Amino acid sequence: MDHVPSLVVDNGSVNEEVKINKEKEKRLIVLGRNIHTMCLEVTEPDVDDEVTGDREAYMAGVLARYKRALTERTKHHLGYPYNLDFDYGALSQLQHFSINNLGDPFIESNYGVHSRQFEVGVLDWFARLWELEKNEYWGYITNCGTEGNLHGILIGREVFPEGILYASRESHYSVFKAARMYRMECVKIDTLWSGEIDCDDFKAKLLQNQDKPAIINVNIGKFLHHCFSLSIPFSLPLTLFILTLTTIAGTTVKGAVDDLDLVIKKLEEAGFSQDRFYIHCDGALFGLMMPFVKRAPKVTFKKPIGSVSVSGHKFVGCPMPCGVQITRLNYVNALSRDVEYLASRDATIMGSRNGHAPIFLWYTLNRKGYRGFQKEVQKCLRNAHYFKDRLVEAGIGAMLNELSSTVVFERPHDEEFVRRWQLACKGNIAHVVVMPNITIEKLNEFLNELLEKRATWFQDGKDQPYCISSDVGEKNCLCALHK
Amino acid sequence: MDHVPSLVVDNGSVNEEVKINKEKEKRLIVLGRNIHTMCLEVTEPDVDDEVTGDREAYMAGVLARYKRALTERTKHHLGYPYNLDFDYGALSQLQHFSINNLGDPFIESNYGVHSRQFEVGVLDWFARLWELEKNEYWGYITNCGTEGNLHGILIGREVFPEGILYASRESHYSVFKAARMYRMECVKIDTLWSGEIDCDDFKAKLLQNQDKPAIINVNIGKFLHHCFSLSIPFSLPLTLFILTLTTIAGTTVKGAVDDLDLVIKKLEEAGFSQDRFYIHCDGALFGLMMPFVKRAPKVTFKKPIGSVSVSGHKFVGCPMPCGVQITRLNYVNALSRDVEYLASRDATIMGSRNGHAPIFLWYTLNRKGYRGFQKEVQKCLRNAHYFKDRLVEAGIGAMLNELSSTVVFERPHDEEFVRRWQLACKGNIAHVVVMPNITIEKLNEFLNELLEKRATWFQDGKDQPYCISSDVGEKNCLCALHK
Repeated sequence: MDHVPSLVVDNGSVNEEVKINKEKEKRLIVLGRNIHTMCLEVTEPDVDDEVTGDREAYMAGVLARYKRALTERTKHHLGYPYNLDFDYGALSQLQHFSINNLGDPFIESNYGVHSRQFEVGVLDWFARLWELEKNEYWGYITNCGTEGNLHGILIGREVFPEGILYASRESHYSVFKAARMYRMECVKIDTLWSGEIDCDDFKAKLLQNQDKPAIINVNIGKFLHHCFSLSIPFSLPLTLFILTLTTIAGTTVKGAVDDLDLVIKKLEEAGFSQDRFYIHCDGALFGLMMPFVKRAPKVTFKKPIGSVSVSGHKFVGCPMPCGVQITRLNYVNALSRDVEYLASRDATIMGSRNGHAPIFLWYTLNRKGYRGFQKEVQKCLRNAHYFKDRLVEAGIGAMLNELSSTVVFERPHDEEFVRRWQLACKGNIAHVVVMPNITIEKLNEFLNELLEKRATWFQDGKDQPYCISSDVGEKNCLCALHK
Repeated sequence: MDHVPSLVVDNGSVNEEVKINKEKEKRLIVLGRNIHTMCLEVTEPDVDDEVTGDREAYMAGVLARYKRALTERTKHHLGYPYNLDFDYGALSQLQHFSINNLGDPFIESNYGVHSRQFEVGVLDWFARLWELEKNEYWGYITNCGTEGNLHGILIGREVFPEGILYASRESHYSVFKAARMYRMECVKIDTLWSGEIDCDDFKAKLLQNQDKPAIINVNIGKFLHHCFSLSIPFSLPLTLFILTLTTIAGTTVKGAVDDLDLVIKKLEEAGFSQDRFYIHCDGALFGLMMPFVKRAPKVTFKKPIGSVSVSGHKFVGCPMPCGVQITRLNYVNALSRDVEYLASRDATIMGSRNGHAPIFLWYTLNRKGYRGFQKEVQKCLRNAHYFKDRLVEAGIGAMLNELSSTVVFERPHDEEFVRRWQLACKGNIAHVVVMPNITIEKLNEFLNELLEKRATWFQDGKDQPYCISSDVGEKNCLCALHK
């Protein structure tokens, strides 16, 4: 398997492939273990297995050890934005049903073991949040954020077959994958150091391509510095309350968010009328975390956007990956086709769709409500601030894209440590995503361990903290040069 | 929502949109209910909900009613090839973990709560079945059969960017969706009445397009009439045993299978050398059901095929949709790209991937082994024969594509009945897929109800049985003209 570059294999040997290129864009680091070394082989049962019970005992042992490992890994889990704090005991009674929402959520197929009634309830909730009428939206619960992006960009391409895809360099990799899959021309836009799209560069590139429609991936919302203005008027009726909501998402690594209003303004300035662009809003990480701020620019279908997707397993917390995709109904009619086999339209990317995920989402949304989410968001933001302050106090360069609760900091110099805490890294930076299950206690545990390790890495000056000013700005960098 | 054609809405009114076109290809029938009428709304909790417990009680009530409906729907379930006979009690302890096999199964990402060791065990099992060495294959567990087809065809396109996609008219609709998504030229091939690809038409169309490489979707295996030759030499060692296996799959509606060897022969005859074609084998429904026959032509990577996909939730039985995709490692290296965020390659269609499905598959494969699957296949084939014979005895036109255990018969004249039994229909035909959970008792119940209903449909000659000869051949049709 020399095709699979691996950094550390189980016997502890290091097998590194690091290609460093002057151009930051081309810097590739491939980490990870070749899992064949830890594969759980499937073997044919012995003829007498049913009698002896050996096999059952073996499998029970494997599962018990696996559960122990999961518990341990779940405990040390900081780098990925998954809320692991959920309790779905009430749903375990449904686990043994083969629930499949084949095809379109709004048209019942003949396969009756589905959960469309839950799915549509969840979709309605999101459509209401983003101000699109029930009879004007279409959507579905996807397998993951990538499927939402693939779907949104595909709609854009079907609406504008000759359109060019514009996306900031910090966009999720699935956006560039979509361009390749769909054979679309793709223009990468620079970012500010915050990770936010550079709208001047965006406009310049639009002006170079005025003859073709624009399909834009926007990492939704706006990067805001006044992060504690979370006073939500709970006494207001729900409809009014929703009007004050905003959705803000983050790019994958830095947790920064693009300014949707500015993007639309630049499109206008470059002479693109509304019938010549399509905006897909990728709310992957924080689409559900950030709506709880007043006076922030809103993500709403009252603005000229085409689709919004969020991940369901991230802030909501769900034992399986899933996402929500909402778009305008008239677009989907262009995309879909009739498939008699299913007695349904074919407007989704996947055919068979997991019917358990909608029930998990429905259960959580119903139980927590907006109020419950708001409390959790506040806690996360408080904890993220605490964490960032503690890092800086300890002399470690760090930045908080405040509303995303993502703390970006100097990449630890030991890959084993990175893996132990499951940090997502890019170049010289790592990030911790403070989710509801990341308590002050867990952050302290991490900090103590980091400081201890750091003392050994930098002992006797044998190594130096990385400069991360190009990622987080000079004022947030604490390398030898900038501190 | 007048964009959503619906046949029956909850108040019982009928709102039919049936466009019948002389050309069979263009006959569209869109069934199904608009689910907004049965949506379970998500509402904001009252301030005192936590005190009163009203909300918990409401939700428990919804879930209890839903469970009752699922039980009922699972009982009346004949048309879709899902084995609903499984017991995963031992795995319920893992339900509350957020298990995510982000990215590539063979490279551990920094996100540690995964099940790659199970996934690779399952993939090894399938690679062994299809005779591809561990260090020569790549694969992953997909969300469904559609993802496998999207992946296989994408590899084909990346290997042959100018290639034309060839697929029989009876291929799964996801194959044609792929062509559209990927902007590939697509040529539809006629089928024989069995549903098998018409290789003469295939060759003729190859000859018309000799200047471009060919990417072929093959519904794997061969349509065989001698279906009880299932004597597997259990005394042989496993390696020898596997050499006698064959995989045969079915097209979606008729359960027929294409003749892989003949497809390869036609490619040769049309002057396509092995470096000018790519074959994706879609084993959606029966890829795991049919390997247990000796002397049948085999699906094996020793033949010039590029990828094989099967569904995991169908014959195996799994509470969530999933599938298995296996391809040659050298192809995937062309497809993948390095994504530092994940510390992994990006060779899968989806990013986040459900980590529970591999554990379900691993558990079942380990428990049943080849022997267990063989017993179930035998039972299904016996029951399918029984069912087809009973239909014909009762004067109902029917056909059994023997090795697929799919019985095709005259479409019932009452859509309510079709929905009650969850039959998949196309034009004038319906099908029942005899899976391990479809017992003789259940088939009898269905037959009795069908005969009772039929007596009323055809009472006083007010309606006539459909002619289905174009679908099943004259000898299997029992309409007024052909009986």
